[in-house]
Amino acid sequence: MDFYFNCYAELGLQRYMVSDRPRTDAFAAAIKEALEGGETVIDVGTGSGLLAMLAAKAGAEKVYALDQSAVAEAARETVERNGMSQRIEVVKGNAAGFQVAEPVDLIISEWLGHFAFAETMLDDVIDCRDANLKEGGRMLPCGVELKLAPVGSDVLYMQDGPGFWKKQVHGIDFSHLEGRELEQALAVKTEVHPDDLIGPAKGLFGLDLAKAKKEDVWQSGRVEMEIKHDGELNGFAGWFVAELTPSVILDTGPAHEITHWMQTYFPISPIPVKAGETLEVCFDLTRHPVEERSLLMSLTVGDSSYSFTVG
Amino acid sequence: MDFYFNCYAELGLQRYMVSDRPRTDAFAAAIKEALEGGETVIDVGTGSGLLAMLAAKAGAEKVYALDQSAVAEAARETVERNGMSQRIEVVKGNAAGFQVAEPVDLIISEWLGHFAFAETMLDDVIDCRDANLKEGGRMLPCGVELKLAPVGSDVLYMQDGPGFWKKQVHGIDFSHLEGRELEQALAVKTEVHPDDLIGPAKGLFGLDLAKAKKEDVWQSGRVEMEIKHDGELNGFAGWFVAELTPSVILDTGPAHEITHWMQTYFPISPIPVKAGETLEVCFDLTRHPVEERSLLMSLTVGDSSYSFTVG
Repeated sequence: MDFYFNCYAELGLQRYMVSDRPRTDAFAAAIKEALEGGETVIDVGTGSGLLAMLAAKAGAEKVYALDQSAVAEAARETVERNGMSQRIEVVKGNAAGFQVAEPVDLIISEWLGHFAFAETMLDDVIDCRDANLKEGGRMLPCGVELKLAPVGSDVLYMQDGPGFWKKQVHGIDFSHLEGRELEQALAVKTEVHPDDLIGPAKGLFGLDLAKAKKEDVWQSGRVEMEIKHDGELNGFAGWFVAELTPSVILDTGPAHEITHWMQTYFPISPIPVKAGETLEVCFDLTRHPVEERSLLMSLTVGDSSYSFTVG
Repeated sequence: MDFYFNCYAELGLQRYMVSDRPRTDAFAAAIKEALEGGETVIDVGTGSGLLAMLAAKAGAEKVYALDQSAVAEAARETVERNGMSQRIEVVKGNAAGFQVAEPVDLIISEWLGHFAFAETMLDDVIDCRDANLKEGGRMLPCGVELKLAPVGSDVLYMQDGPGFWKKQVHGIDFSHLEGRELEQALAVKTEVHPDDLIGPAKGLFGLDLAKAKKEDVWQSGRVEMEIKHDGELNGFAGWFVAELTPSVILDTGPAHEITHWMQTYFPISPIPVKAGETLEVCFDLTRHPVEERSLLMSLTVGDSSYSFTVG
């Protein structure tokens, strides 16, 4: 826990997020759209304070900007320097336990992690919502959906993935490490290109963040994956689409400008596939049993099952 | 400690190192050159087992391949599959406490971390050397030198560094974060291009690994930096040059093919400079007081001092 919040005290990490243009521009547009003037707002995990200040600029009357990390102190100074101290109250503390006197109109939070749910920060946002959001109040983002698409990629699997071990290195045979690395089942945060996909993405599930309960994140299900190209299926690409407002969508998929979330590659032992084929894929997303704030994403295709750590 | 060795059990990390071509090719060439046939060898931190197997291929009669991580088990299987079990003994355990019956001719170790000394693995290599290297035996690498060069780079400082905060973001002024981020003084592992440098590199100090003591890593000193271009000094680039054998040099500087070590960027508050000028830079490299296996690199130029964490 301490390590988690400590890392957000690093201004280099804050800069990494603020300088992610598709992310920051989408939140800026959504905040502008969501506020008419006079609203009360909570920003959960304010970090640099940017979203709270954009809410104040968009007309919010009062913004509670919460952060548990030491960055709260820097955010407070930024708020002062921008002349917004009257309207923004930076609160250093735990969002899950925060209780405001009057329920608020809007809760903003950029709680999104790797494959949306890594870091499991949504738990705190939901607690904060249940304690502080007015009846009929809104969440920003208001929805999130997970996507999964079939991958057949020489770069992801052979060059930068377990398939690397197939080739000898200076005459040494490492080929048995391919299977061992697949068994370790680490999901990789990387850039997936549209050409790496051999079929369209399917939605796994979506959440309505005005209503979702904590346990709604942990879902299992089944999707039919269509294959559009002959070749080899050697994994899946995952990402999220966040609905910031009904008209401002932040899509972190391969067809969109890259963000700091990139995409998630789940490598699997290659399976020959043919165009027109349909594959049934079962998934099961759970909390990681050992690594706090990580996810366990189980994927089953044919006879093979993998339990991927998404950290 | 456990976390440190656990991470090397990940085959993805082993692959990341083995697939670093300049690194792997240089070690392969050096091992070939260092062995004539019939020697005894220790490989400290064998990981995938690659360097131990290259030593056996180059004629070593007996190789002790040591690793404290669970990867030792995979290395043992690779050795077997390559028919080298007679000559390579994989030992899972601590190199610092390893004691062989007969002193060996050569100790190989790819102990190099970020800015050479991060991870502080050299301590274990030195203990292993003092306990096991024959009088007149050799070390591979046999030497290492740290380099530092003056940087004047818009990309490193303004776009991807503390200077980012100078520009408003959606009308919000974050400029005070530039100084705060500089105070946090995190050295950044990144790719430095030759064009980012505004003067030649200077050697800080070198170690002869046949003789170096653990405390020899922690040195301070003073270098004169020549400035070749008018502009702004906004940091320093650091890297290491490893002498694997007297004729095989692994130079991880910006003028050479990029390796997984990349370079280290130390951002400082910009100082206007003129071509022909000479700047005195004082350095002091110490163990990090808090973060195990990290370094503290103090740099003083003019009136300004920075204590960088190199993790």
